[in-house]
Amino acid sequence: MTSYWNDFSGIPEALEKVSGIIQGVSASENPIISSGLTVLFDGKGKLLRPGLFLMAAQFGKLQEKHYKLAAALEMLHIATLIHDDVIDDSPLRRGFPTVHTRFGKRDAVLIGDYLLSRCFLITAEYTSPQNAVNLARLISIICTMEIEQNNDRFRSNLSLRSYLRKIMGKSALLFSLACYAGAYEAKAPQEVCRRLRRIGYNIGIAFQIIDDILDYTGNQDLVRKPLGNDVTAGLITLPVLCALPLDNSGTLRDIFSRAAFTAEEGARIFNLVRQSGGAEAAGRYAENYTSRALREIAALPPGKNRDMLEILTRRLLIREQ
Amino acid sequence: MTSYWNDFSGIPEALEKVSGIIQGVSASENPIISSGLTVLFDGKGKLLRPGLFLMAAQFGKLQEKHYKLAAALEMLHIATLIHDDVIDDSPLRRGFPTVHTRFGKRDAVLIGDYLLSRCFLITAEYTSPQNAVNLARLISIICTMEIEQNNDRFRSNLSLRSYLRKIMGKSALLFSLACYAGAYEAKAPQEVCRRLRRIGYNIGIAFQIIDDILDYTGNQDLVRKPLGNDVTAGLITLPVLCALPLDNSGTLRDIFSRAAFTAEEGARIFNLVRQSGGAEAAGRYAENYTSRALREIAALPPGKNRDMLEILTRRLLIREQ
Repeated sequence: MTSYWNDFSGIPEALEKVSGIIQGVSASENPIISSGLTVLFDGKGKLLRPGLFLMAAQFGKLQEKHYKLAAALEMLHIATLIHDDVIDDSPLRRGFPTVHTRFGKRDAVLIGDYLLSRCFLITAEYTSPQNAVNLARLISIICTMEIEQNNDRFRSNLSLRSYLRKIMGKSALLFSLACYAGAYEAKAPQEVCRRLRRIGYNIGIAFQIIDDILDYTGNQDLVRKPLGNDVTAGLITLPVLCALPLDNSGTLRDIFSRAAFTAEEGARIFNLVRQSGGAEAAGRYAENYTSRALREIAALPPGKNRDMLEILTRRLLIREQ
Repeated sequence: MTSYWNDFSGIPEALEKVSGIIQGVSASENPIISSGLTVLFDGKGKLLRPGLFLMAAQFGKLQEKHYKLAAALEMLHIATLIHDDVIDDSPLRRGFPTVHTRFGKRDAVLIGDYLLSRCFLITAEYTSPQNAVNLARLISIICTMEIEQNNDRFRSNLSLRSYLRKIMGKSALLFSLACYAGAYEAKAPQEVCRRLRRIGYNIGIAFQIIDDILDYTGNQDLVRKPLGNDVTAGLITLPVLCALPLDNSGTLRDIFSRAAFTAEEGARIFNLVRQSGGAEAAGRYAENYTSRALREIAALPPGKNRDMLEILTRRLLIREQ
């Protein structure tokens, strides 16, 4: 785990438990599955989704089985990372060789499927049917949005609306479900559950925007992957959309006056976005969504829990990795 | 649908309904997902798993929602086919270009994930929690066995036991669950449910053995894929295990005296198995499992339903595709 959680009392211990569950799930079944998971775990993910789930659960009555549900959310997240890396042919994830680099694409696809099934197994065994339905529906949306995103690669006439729709599907809904389901399963009051769903949603949108910004302006040692990945792979993210009206040379607008752009133009777009301050302008969107989350957080029942959620939300906005 | 069902009263109509559900599930969401599915559907699968599910359900009280569950089983099956084709890089499935050939591997992996999630969505919405758990557990086993199978590629010292374990995980358990869950969800008597679980298991083992035999002796126009696929890809199936004691030249035993074999030796093994009658010997195993299924079928409540199940079981043993 990373320093994200160091000063959150109780959370690091809870997440240790969650890690133990994820690693234990596969340990007995097959050596390849468990090494596959260990590879990803050694890469020290932030465990943000289970962290949010457990923080939300503390607005109700946290029970032992909730650690399993928190683990299920991370397993879903890891499954999508493994499949993403296979289809993007990425050699590194979190600075470590990806699962398919070590075990081949064949096993990587299967390890991803295995994790999805274990995630469903946990939800079928331990959650309310409503949240099992929510989770399955969420995965459908994630896949649909990823397919839509692939379909839009190298297309230049993308709207802000279509960008937001995609990051909602790719990221925000999982954050939102993590917060909502945590509170709901722990039997927090309905109003708190609904508020946490909106909080998760706004944190998630801001989180993905920051991710997209870091691909332009990040410190390469911290983000542990080459910058400019997105646009050279054909993905138009918020920094590009924000750079369009800022680029005085008109070159960006010129490139985007055509229906599609090339990988070479992608590299030029990367530089133009950096020069024109598109990333900084995109940052204001992230601030905006963070403010929305903070306003909702302020309306939660006061206490240590609310304070921690506020600190986390602010910290995610200024994260550098 | 194929001629498998032509003389089964009521089943072709029921399966039309199931097909409609599968195609409808995706139609509205994303054009790529629905074309991906149409590609596979035009290939006219046998719809065996939903067929078995519905036949089993008729031992209880068949309800409208059961068609959805039948569709979910086929969606799971299609998801595994799509992922299999991606990881095996197969250009054709049922004589048609595979999903990844048409839409790229990226979308093919995602369409598979999407189908898995829709399958879980249906089970979370419409089945008893117990069967949602059974299904999730089954998918974990399928993945684990596929990984095990990949791990064993080109290894020569495989036992009959390890072969049976793998085809159980790859095929028989899904047949078994289709039969069991159909009866269980339709509230058939517990004894009938349990018997159908064993029937599905034995039909499934026989089905996979026949599949493995057809890879050696099939009519290429009917099986619509090149013969000898398995062993040149490093998979040792029952015809090889049966050929070992039958090959008088000793060449097979010689190849298998080493820990591993090569793709070139795979092509030689293919011929040796055909010459020595390994496929025919394997056929006796399929007959044996079919007999076990038939014995159990004979103990089911008599009627049209039982008769159809018997006819289907016999027909699957002599299938040529």
